[in-house]
Amino acid sequence: MSEPSFRRVALIGIGLIGSSLARVMRRETIAEEIVISTRSQATLDRAEELGLGDRYYRDAREAVEGADLVIVCVPVGACEAVAEQIAPGLAPGAIVTDAGSVKGAVIKAMKPYIPDNVHFIAGHPIAGTEYSGPDAGFASLFENRWCVLTPELGTDEKALAKLTAFWEACGSSVEIMDAEHHDLVLAVVSHLPHIIAYNIVGTADDLETVTKSEVIKYSASGFRDFTRLAASDPTMWRDVCLTNKEAILEMLARFSEDLSALQRAIRWGDGDRLFDLFTRTRVIRRQLIEAGQESAAPNFGRQNDRGEPGE
Amino acid sequence: MSEPSFRRVALIGIGLIGSSLARVMRRETIAEEIVISTRSQATLDRAEELGLGDRYYRDAREAVEGADLVIVCVPVGACEAVAEQIAPGLAPGAIVTDAGSVKGAVIKAMKPYIPDNVHFIAGHPIAGTEYSGPDAGFASLFENRWCVLTPELGTDEKALAKLTAFWEACGSSVEIMDAEHHDLVLAVVSHLPHIIAYNIVGTADDLETVTKSEVIKYSASGFRDFTRLAASDPTMWRDVCLTNKEAILEMLARFSEDLSALQRAIRWGDGDRLFDLFTRTRVIRRQLIEAGQESAAPNFGRQNDRGEPGE
Repeated sequence: MSEPSFRRVALIGIGLIGSSLARVMRRETIAEEIVISTRSQATLDRAEELGLGDRYYRDAREAVEGADLVIVCVPVGACEAVAEQIAPGLAPGAIVTDAGSVKGAVIKAMKPYIPDNVHFIAGHPIAGTEYSGPDAGFASLFENRWCVLTPELGTDEKALAKLTAFWEACGSSVEIMDAEHHDLVLAVVSHLPHIIAYNIVGTADDLETVTKSEVIKYSASGFRDFTRLAASDPTMWRDVCLTNKEAILEMLARFSEDLSALQRAIRWGDGDRLFDLFTRTRVIRRQLIEAGQESAAPNFGRQNDRGEPGE
Repeated sequence: MSEPSFRRVALIGIGLIGSSLARVMRRETIAEEIVISTRSQATLDRAEELGLGDRYYRDAREAVEGADLVIVCVPVGACEAVAEQIAPGLAPGAIVTDAGSVKGAVIKAMKPYIPDNVHFIAGHPIAGTEYSGPDAGFASLFENRWCVLTPELGTDEKALAKLTAFWEACGSSVEIMDAEHHDLVLAVVSHLPHIIAYNIVGTADDLETVTKSEVIKYSASGFRDFTRLAASDPTMWRDVCLTNKEAILEMLARFSEDLSALQRAIRWGDGDRLFDLFTRTRVIRRQLIEAGQESAAPNFGRQNDRGEPGE
């Protein structure tokens, strides 16, 4: 991108997503000016220390004044309060978007506050790590990842094109989807896996017959894979569970149904059934690797001290 | 290790574990001679092409003749047949061990065939990747990993010390445990995670409202982590499920109980309960990293094409 496409971009929230956006916007000169706002003074100070923006505000309304793009990067449950707060400061013609993992509830929460002369387009960059906060961000977080936008009927085409170009400049590919379908897709590919991971780590933590130190010691045999998702930001995931409830409960019901069948196959020693499932699932990983969505390196490419696999 | 500690080591089975053992034995000069046996001619030929051993046999009995250490590296369900087959060929004073993920059932299956003048000590190196076969092995697989030995009462101290030294020479730390406790520990740290991973990948594969290509496309948001375990060897995992049934069913029952409680918290919008669980599980990952059992790198250290994190 040769010329900044936005004059002033306001980031509301400067955690993993916000701080990664700040970094990639700087690297790719996407914005002339980056304005950062977060409620916590300590986090705001840290963002300034890291040089993530050009101006810093605790008050989100002040931060959005004169911005032509506002990106709300806060947990889903905080989106309504932010929308209410920024509404009076929004410039006519500005684009407001977000980065939340749930779209239906966010649109419902934010939309009523957004003035008619402002373009609101909800979005979700499908990217992240298990770390949070302004230090956790990095410029390549969005590279080769998908960003889903869920514009409502009647959304201004030019605004949508501009927001699409923004995410492409950040390295992502953009997909347009309706909010309800997004929430269903994410319930299975993201919300269910996180909930299951949180649950299994909790189960292991509660055992009295196997000590916690044994769980940690022998975790390389499978368990540790789950601990990564279960180390994700608790506030973000509480909010996801509370706001995408219907889709999540539907996926949980299917998962439990399948698990009961699997449990029954184990109890009755139905080896063929087990073998069939275990063979079928193997194919999916291969397809994922072929689609460029996963590393083919064993153990995710985890390195030991000598830079060899197996750690 | 300056001098080979075994004159002749026979590997029965030359998959991920067997071929990794062959490689590390060569690198560390642990054995004067490595003898390899596997039922499949194609696999045996491949092992020879890779130069993994000194002699190659399809007949396991011939392979163990004159060996002072025999390591059975086949799926747990094949252990009994192997024991029966090798028994007449075993040299007096030899040590026979295995590498299976279940110990109670393996001891029960193999022990009756092992002659009294041979030392049988069951074992389990807690190491692996999602790949299988002779090409998948590498010399550092066992480095900084635990190997659990489950000797029965009356096991010869010298034989146990010799087998311990063997695994230490391969790079592992050895832990002695009784077989029943091993099977309980592994049920939670390894068997349950694999079963849950197989199940969730199966659930996602079965949906009619979300397409398989959507699952693959957006898998970086959590789902892909599970596909690694769900890509593990189907024969091995069928056998684990069939032979460690009681402990696995116990762990599955606890997991399901906890999941029902979590599901209820989601249904009733109990944010505090969700937040508490999600906070508690975060601690465990930190402890795992501190214990040297996991990489601190975001996303397991997965690399993108430019060698940066985030892929």
